[in-house]
Amino acid sequence: MRVVDLIDKKKHGKVLGREEIDFFIHGYVNGDIPDYQAAALLMAVWFRGMTSEETRDLTLSMASSGATADLSAIDGIKVDKHSTGGVADTTTLVVAPIVAACGGKVAKMSGRGLGHTGGTLDKLESIPGLSVDQDMETFAEIVSGCGLSIIGQTGDLVPADKKLYALRDVTGTVDSVSLIAASIMSKKIASGADAIVLDVKTGSGAFMKEIADAVRLAETMVEIGNLAGRKTVALVTDMGQPLGNAVGNALEVREAIEILRGRHPGDLRTVSEALAARMLVLSGVHRTVAEATDAVREALRSGKALARFACMIEAQGGDPSVTEDTDALPAAAVHREIPSPRSGYVTDMRADQIGVSATLLGAGRGRKEETIDPAVGLWMRKRIGDRVEEGEPLAVFHVNDRSNEEAAVSTFLEAIEIGGPPASPRELIHRIIE
Amino acid sequence: MRVVDLIDKKKHGKVLGREEIDFFIHGYVNGDIPDYQAAALLMAVWFRGMTSEETRDLTLSMASSGATADLSAIDGIKVDKHSTGGVADTTTLVVAPIVAACGGKVAKMSGRGLGHTGGTLDKLESIPGLSVDQDMETFAEIVSGCGLSIIGQTGDLVPADKKLYALRDVTGTVDSVSLIAASIMSKKIASGADAIVLDVKTGSGAFMKEIADAVRLAETMVEIGNLAGRKTVALVTDMGQPLGNAVGNALEVREAIEILRGRHPGDLRTVSEALAARMLVLSGVHRTVAEATDAVREALRSGKALARFACMIEAQGGDPSVTEDTDALPAAAVHREIPSPRSGYVTDMRADQIGVSATLLGAGRGRKEETIDPAVGLWMRKRIGDRVEEGEPLAVFHVNDRSNEEAAVSTFLEAIEIGGPPASPRELIHRIIE
Repeated sequence: MRVVDLIDKKKHGKVLGREEIDFFIHGYVNGDIPDYQAAALLMAVWFRGMTSEETRDLTLSMASSGATADLSAIDGIKVDKHSTGGVADTTTLVVAPIVAACGGKVAKMSGRGLGHTGGTLDKLESIPGLSVDQDMETFAEIVSGCGLSIIGQTGDLVPADKKLYALRDVTGTVDSVSLIAASIMSKKIASGADAIVLDVKTGSGAFMKEIADAVRLAETMVEIGNLAGRKTVALVTDMGQPLGNAVGNALEVREAIEILRGRHPGDLRTVSEALAARMLVLSGVHRTVAEATDAVREALRSGKALARFACMIEAQGGDPSVTEDTDALPAAAVHREIPSPRSGYVTDMRADQIGVSATLLGAGRGRKEETIDPAVGLWMRKRIGDRVEEGEPLAVFHVNDRSNEEAAVSTFLEAIEIGGPPASPRELIHRIIE
Repeated sequence: MRVVDLIDKKKHGKVLGREEIDFFIHGYVNGDIPDYQAAALLMAVWFRGMTSEETRDLTLSMASSGATADLSAIDGIKVDKHSTGGVADTTTLVVAPIVAACGGKVAKMSGRGLGHTGGTLDKLESIPGLSVDQDMETFAEIVSGCGLSIIGQTGDLVPADKKLYALRDVTGTVDSVSLIAASIMSKKIASGADAIVLDVKTGSGAFMKEIADAVRLAETMVEIGNLAGRKTVALVTDMGQPLGNAVGNALEVREAIEILRGRHPGDLRTVSEALAARMLVLSGVHRTVAEATDAVREALRSGKALARFACMIEAQGGDPSVTEDTDALPAAAVHREIPSPRSGYVTDMRADQIGVSATLLGAGRGRKEETIDPAVGLWMRKRIGDRVEEGEPLAVFHVNDRSNEEAAVSTFLEAIEIGGPPASPRELIHRIIE
């Protein structure tokens, strides 16, 4: 088999078989196939796309390119969730404790943030003492005991994705539905979950700006998951404005805890409830979404979800008192209200730009090697459709290093449109694909 | 400027500007841009194509990527020809002496053969003593004195093409009209000719199997040549069967000499006359093709063309007596007639397979580093449309190393179809693009 023949085949729109895809992934990971041939093949895939079978084969080949997580020590159906990434989107910290409280098992390997979207690991690490580095045995014990654990990727899971992603990033081949789907799903499959709920974001703050593209990605991933023998459901949810109020690591943990206390309604809570309910149905804990939704609300109301979060925090070495007193979380030196420059209705809040604003304050990274400040970020007071008066605070900025503060403020203000008449409210859950 | 942005632009079908193309070619040649980004860009070009302006810019950027030949020491308009490569296609050895005899100046840098098509340098080197390695000063002197000289590329002409061609070969991006046109024309332009006549082959023995593709390539190259300030004309000629009778280096020199003696009619002579006439018109020696054609025929009839060939051979260190006595050329030990397996009309002669047959005898190379035997090859006795009786020789094989002889014979016989009714004769010159 020669790679140049595979390139030629894909270039002419023909379908690659399982063996051909295995040959490529295996050869690329072990270094027999050079980057330039991989780049040519990826670009041909960008133009021609891949069939469901090709995308499944690619995903499975990538998933088995390195170590895979063995979760068999944990009883029951392990359910995972994945978000394609958004701003003020800390659903994992809300959803996982809820599912655990309702009897599900959430064994989640998560990632760090890059660019304008936050990372679950970074958020968790803002909790004093908590470590996301746990070996597989401890991980399994924590999931068995608390019903949930969220850790960083251990071992050499999916080396094919690491290598391909780095190449795609510099060869203009990131924005391919098949390649995105294979990248996400290969990691989910290698992480060992039996069931997967996907939260595919769409809108200004998401990678997929258009609903149609998000739906196509969601459909592709659900199809791959099911073909690979994992029960998979996807929700296409709105990222046309930040999902919650908080952007920044400790601030988002605080907001998650507020929701787990049953006190903080809003879109973040709504989406979290929907995701949790689907996870419980896929886990077999509940038969219907309606039944699961009732259980989810009860877990919030009763404080059981919050208790599960405290259990996990303590098991991972963190201070569980943050769930009772969020002032134990790191706090920034300066709190600054950002007044509205005029009166009117909020007609747009561009989530990506708001993410950039928080990154400028030090809440996120532009490059992998940058460090973040867990305390900083911003807390928004308004959403699209809200009325605001001139001088009324749009948000509170939490600042330590003031060097980029003015740039952050102006980026934030540019992201907000105030005018009239009031915008019709954005739909929150655009589609459910199962 | 970042390559990844250029890739993205081309990927989305946008047009690259002169500066962007220069940035790419310069960066790729000096090693700043890695092969994998070049491969992704080439594949995007394969899918999207390039506009005339982009192709011209690419060609000029490539042409100036290294040294360029300075032919200013030679008086008059220097005219070059280029063939996209065929089988039994030794037009250069016929055309260059004719043009010189009629008062044109042919300063030609040529290439070696690879695959099933022959190379002019390999053919010339079958002449005892002749050297194709001449410095630029000697080259100019020979062209000034004899009216022609054919040598190997000197200096570091068009390094961008060497590097890009090697990459295209292993990334499935060879068959792009824009990239082929830029590769050919960058070398012609760097070689310093004022006028260029292109012979674009089409049919079974050519890279472009379909006439429409050959016409498109011809049109693209003529457009680039003219945009680059070189008078350029292209003939699209037939390679649906071998052009002449001889395939093999010394055998093709022998056939060229037979034509230069005015004794050997046929398609090779017809195409050579047409190319020579166009070269004389572009050189300004004659005003019309009809006038030039009369002069071409007179040069053959009078022996003046043959004398020019002898002049060049002697000037390049070769034995000019081969033009009087072709038996001075290397000869193979074994001459074997290949009888027709049945009676009928020749309805097909697949040129590529006949080229492969000669390569099996040792007349050509599969890989660049292989050596060739100048003496071996085959001399065909029949063409499409001819009647042949069972047992009548279809060709004579000239063999030294007999190890692949039977494979060569069966490859040859598979290339020939004999049946009936007689095929209508193939058109020889499909299109003239000027």
